Order: sequence, then C-alpha cells, then structure tokens
Amino acid sequence: MDFPSFSLDTSLLEEANEPDPEITYDLLILGGGPAAMSAAVYAARKMMNLAIITKDFGGQVRETSEVENWLGFQSINAKDLADSFEEHVKSFGIPVSLGRAITEVKKQGDTFRVWTDDATVYSSRTIILSTGKRHRLLNVPGEQELVGRGLAYCATCDAPFFKGKKVVVAGGGNSAFTTVLDLVKVEAEVTLINFIKGWQADGPLQKRVEQTGTVSMLDYRQIVKIEGKDKVTGVVVKNRESEKEEKLKTDGVFVEIGLLPNNQSVKDLVELNDQGEVIVDCTCQTSVQGLYAAGDVTTVPHKQIVIAAGEGAKAALSAYSYLVNKSLL
Amino acid sequence: MDFPSFSLDTSLLEEANEPDPEITYDLLILGGGPAAMSAAVYAARKMMNLAIITKDFGGQVRETSEVENWLGFQSINAKDLADSFEEHVKSFGIPVSLGRAITEVKKQGDTFRVWTDDATVYSSRTIILSTGKRHRLLNVPGEQELVGRGLAYCATCDAPFFKGKKVVVAGGGNSAFTTVLDLVKVEAEVTLINFIKGWQADGPLQKRVEQTGTVSMLDYRQIVKIEGKDKVTGVVVKNRESEKEEKLKTDGVFVEIGLLPNNQSVKDLVELNDQGEVIVDCTCQTSVQGLYAAGDVTTVPHKQIVIAAGEGAKAALSAYSYLVNKSLL
Repeated sequence: MDFPSFSLDTSLLEEANEPDPEITYDLLILGGGPAAMSAAVYAARKMMNLAIITKDFGGQVRETSEVENWLGFQSINAKDLADSFEEHVKSFGIPVSLGRAITEVKKQGDTFRVWTDDATVYSSRTIILSTGKRHRLLNVPGEQELVGRGLAYCATCDAPFFKGKKVVVAGGGNSAFTTVLDLVKVEAEVTLINFIKGWQADGPLQKRVEQTGTVSMLDYRQIVKIEGKDKVTGVVVKNRESEKEEKLKTDGVFVEIGLLPNNQSVKDLVELNDQGEVIVDCTCQTSVQGLYAAGDVTTVPHKQIVIAAGEGAKAALSAYSYLVNKSLL
Repeated sequence: MDFPSFSLDTSLLEEANEPDPEITYDLLILGGGPAAMSAAVYAARKMMNLAIITKDFGGQVRETSEVENWLGFQSINAKDLADSFEEHVKSFGIPVSLGRAITEVKKQGDTFRVWTDDATVYSSRTIILSTGKRHRLLNVPGEQELVGRGLAYCATCDAPFFKGKKVVVAGGGNSAFTTVLDLVKVEAEVTLINFIKGWQADGPLQKRVEQTGTVSMLDYRQIVKIEGKDKVTGVVVKNRESEKEEKLKTDGVFVEIGLLPNNQSVKDLVELNDQGEVIVDCTCQTSVQGLYAAGDVTTVPHKQIVIAAGEGAKAALSAYSYLVNKSLL
C-alpha cells in the first residue's frame, strides 16, 4: 500500500514561549523523551494549562540509529522519529524551558515547586516526572563519537542490525547476558567482556549463554578504547591481571554496564526502589499525591519507546482525573 | 520540516499462512487490535515462534475517524493508521488465523490449548490475551451505519472534532459525565440523555457538569433512532414516562453506556475483577503462569491506542523472559 499522506501544520511551530514562574500550572512535565512527549500530547488535548522543562527533546531515541519496533513503521530513522514526536508536541504551543537541568522538586501545601539550575522556580498543581535513565558509560575514547555507529545500548532495539557480525558486549550482569542471547539469536559472533572477576548474571542466564558454545567470555578485562572513524572497527582491551593490552576486531559494541535513573530532583520527596527507580502503580501514581511518573525513571520494566509513550499517556490522564476529582480543573 | 520518507517492503506482504495445529508455538496472540499488533512486532523481533488468532486487524481503531494522539502524527486517518499497523505485523510473515472467534483457552500441564469456533485446537507455551472490549450498543437504527460519521465512542479521541457543535451524549455514569465535560471544554452544546431515572455518576462529576450551566440533562428517555445519511443530523428520543417521541437536531452522538471486556474464552481460567476485566500486574502477568494480557481486556485504565500498544510490547517481553527463564527458548 501507499503510506497515508499527511501534512504538518507548520503555522503553529513558532518558537515556544518560556514557562512563566508567576503562573501555577495545572501540570509541569519534567523531561523530554517519549514518555514526556506523549504525556504532553494527551494533556494538551485535555486543555490542561501545562509547561515542559527539559534539557532536550527526544531523549534516548536520539542515541539509536534505526527504529524497527515503533508500530506502523517497519523501519524509521531514529532522528526522524524523534523529530516527528517533537513537532507533534510543539504544534500545541506549550511553553518549554529548554536546556536547563531540574535541581529540586518540593511540595508545599497542594502546590509543587520546581527549581532549575538557573535558580528559577516554577509552580504547578501536578507533576509528571519523566526524566528517564542514563547509561553508565565506559568513559573511554571513541565511546561518545561512535554512539549509533556500531556502539549501542539496547539489544531489543538494535540486535537485528548485527546479524552475522562480530560484536563485543561490555558487562557481566543480567542485561549483558540477555544482550548476548539476543545477539546469538541473530547469529552474531559475540565476545563478552567484564571489568571485574566472575559474572553477576543469574544462574539460568549464565547457563544458557554457556550452552550456546559460541560465546567468548573474558573477565577481569578493561575496555580502554573503542576504535573506528565512521563506525566501530575494534576495541582495545587491557588484561587487568597481566596489564597487557590487545586489539579485538569488532563491528559493534553493546555497553551493558548499568543504567542510572535520573531521580536527583525527587530523591528526597518520593519513594524509590533499591535501584533508585521511582515506584509507581499501574496508573503512574507515585507515593506523593499529584506527582506522577512515567517511562524509564520508574519501576515499569523495559526501556522501549512505545512502552514509555503508553506510560506517558497514562500519567497525563491520571493527572487530569486527579484535578477533575479535586475540582481544580 | 518534511516528514521522513520511508517505503514498505511489499515483497514480504504475501498472504499469511494459517497457524499449524500440530505445532506447539512459543506464543499465541489472541486478538488483532493495537495491543496484539505491538506484541506481535516485539515477539517476532525476539525470534519467537508465534501465531495470531483474530477476527480482524485493527480492532477499535477502525471505529474512529481521525487520530490526533498517536505520537508523531498531528492528525492521521484512523483507517490509514490501522493499515500501517497491520502491514508492519504482516511484514514478519507470522501465521494468522483470521475471521474466527476464540471459544475457549485451557491450560493442560505447561501447554495452553486454544479452541476456535470451527473446533480447531492450537497449542502454545505462552498466551497473550488482547481481545479488547466491545461497546454496549444502543441497538437502534442508524447506529452501525453512522460510526465514525458523527457517532463516536471515545471523547478523549474525538471530542476536539466537535468544537462548537451540538452533541448528544447517551449514558448516565462516570464515562458519560466525563465525556460531557470533555465536550463542554471544546464549547460543544451538549444534551445528556439517560435511559433510566436519575444519574449514576460520582457526585463531584455530577456537580461539575451542573456548574457548567450549559448542559441539558434528560433522564428516563430512550434514544430510539439516530438520523442522518452521510453523517449524524439528529436523534429520535422517547420520553419513557409520557411515551411521546421527539426529534433533536444534533451533529454528533457519543454512546457511553458501558464497555464489555471480551473475556469469554478465559473466564473459567483466569482471575477477573468485578467488571470482568482480566487482572494484570505492571508486567502484564495474569493469575495464570505463562498467560499474559494486554490492552482494553485488562484492568489497565484508559482505552487508548498508545497505551494498548505499550502494554502489548510489555506482554511480549514478559512472555519472552518467562520462556528464557524456563530454558524453553
């Protein structure tokens, strides 16, 4: 079939206003990834008076290359997908504070106060926290430059692109082992490299990787450099026992050494689990009335665009119901 | 901006095979709406051996006209959106049983058996139940013919299309009152019509509707006909006390008299709530190991495409983890 044609109403895409610190908004959305953007679309359509505070639009979508699991698109460039999300949000003319970090969220009476790193304070009756997670990085030369060019952080998203190729997986826990299995399924030739001695993954997962019989497992090794110009071509690995370095040729590197929830602004306000994730119920309600959370920063499993977008919509509808029930909307 | 161009790989869109009753699949997906289709995309990309059993593809998406809250599209024709979902699913060559109703799901040992209405029995190690809800209908002349042409079932989706217009809302419970408020927000001229005497909505909601001062509220009235050829032009309403009929001019009718979960095939197998919805946790796990549920048939709130799609993805990843942990994949 021909894909449906449609046009964007660009007349609405003027430069967004800054949020007004004098206004008490119905809703402040903190973050700019898929959860935040979907929440914004739903809240705007419910005619809520809202504003967005975010460092950027797109979040981790902009860290991947192609997306093949956003329903309706067999394949779409990640940047194009993020752009289409951003323009959808901007079409509503929502005020946006762009480029500033959120330093603290407090609740004073029934009103939330949100501080940004330039000491501005915004006010709102409800909050959706959708600040996402960040990857624990290797912090080695080549890492930043090669993101999306062979350096990947999500096997569910990107494993199929490495069919039959050589891939290094950095890590030794469940997510690293799951990544290895996803890559073995697409017949990749996998080398698993762990910084510490031994492996932290659950027993059954370790057993399944061993049973493949095809995975090289190197522990107590440090990846000290990722090589490649336009795309990943190899890694330099240091044996932490002998201190010797060797080069490994590879087409890809998956970094699976942990994720850190961006919970700094709410860590004294809201209940977190052991991993620092914001605990939510199935309606995105946190432990604080009027404070909702959606996407990767929460206890909801799986870092996926469509899951985050669904949770964002839920959070917006929950915040709307909360205000309606309190007769504040 | 120009929207990203992309092309569908139509070479893959051959007629889908029927599922094979001799095979024990990794996963059977029951249903064909957004939750089912998103689950299928995720499961196929995880290389699970799966099949789909559904009456049709698209589900309730095909009952609405335009969609303005699917992230990335400011506005898209609902049929086109459903078509794009369907083609995405079909690109994986998943076997599909189309047009048959599912009559029963049983668990025998570790294997699920699924009966269709032609007495075929399919087998699988996991199930995703995503059979959706159906609207309780008015069952009056004109209703079926005018769906998507002024007759609507979802205010969150469609209220903005009735800005400033005359609209009748059928119902007297929370969803009818919420629909009224959504329509008042877009300055529609609303008449609320309830079959029984009195109103069932929660007090605060009733109060808020009264406070608008603009809503006509008629109870103990029966809508006996919806008029219009290409689009809704009016309704015929019978006063159940006087038995007199009168015509009301209207541009739209929202039917909000209840939703019924399509739980028939699992009602003896799995735990349901009072409304007959399948109880799930935040990972889409039901009360039966290996049986996952996603979308409108579940206890997850809000009937929204993006929410259902997110839940479907979660259910597929949960089913995948379950099989990996049992070393069945």
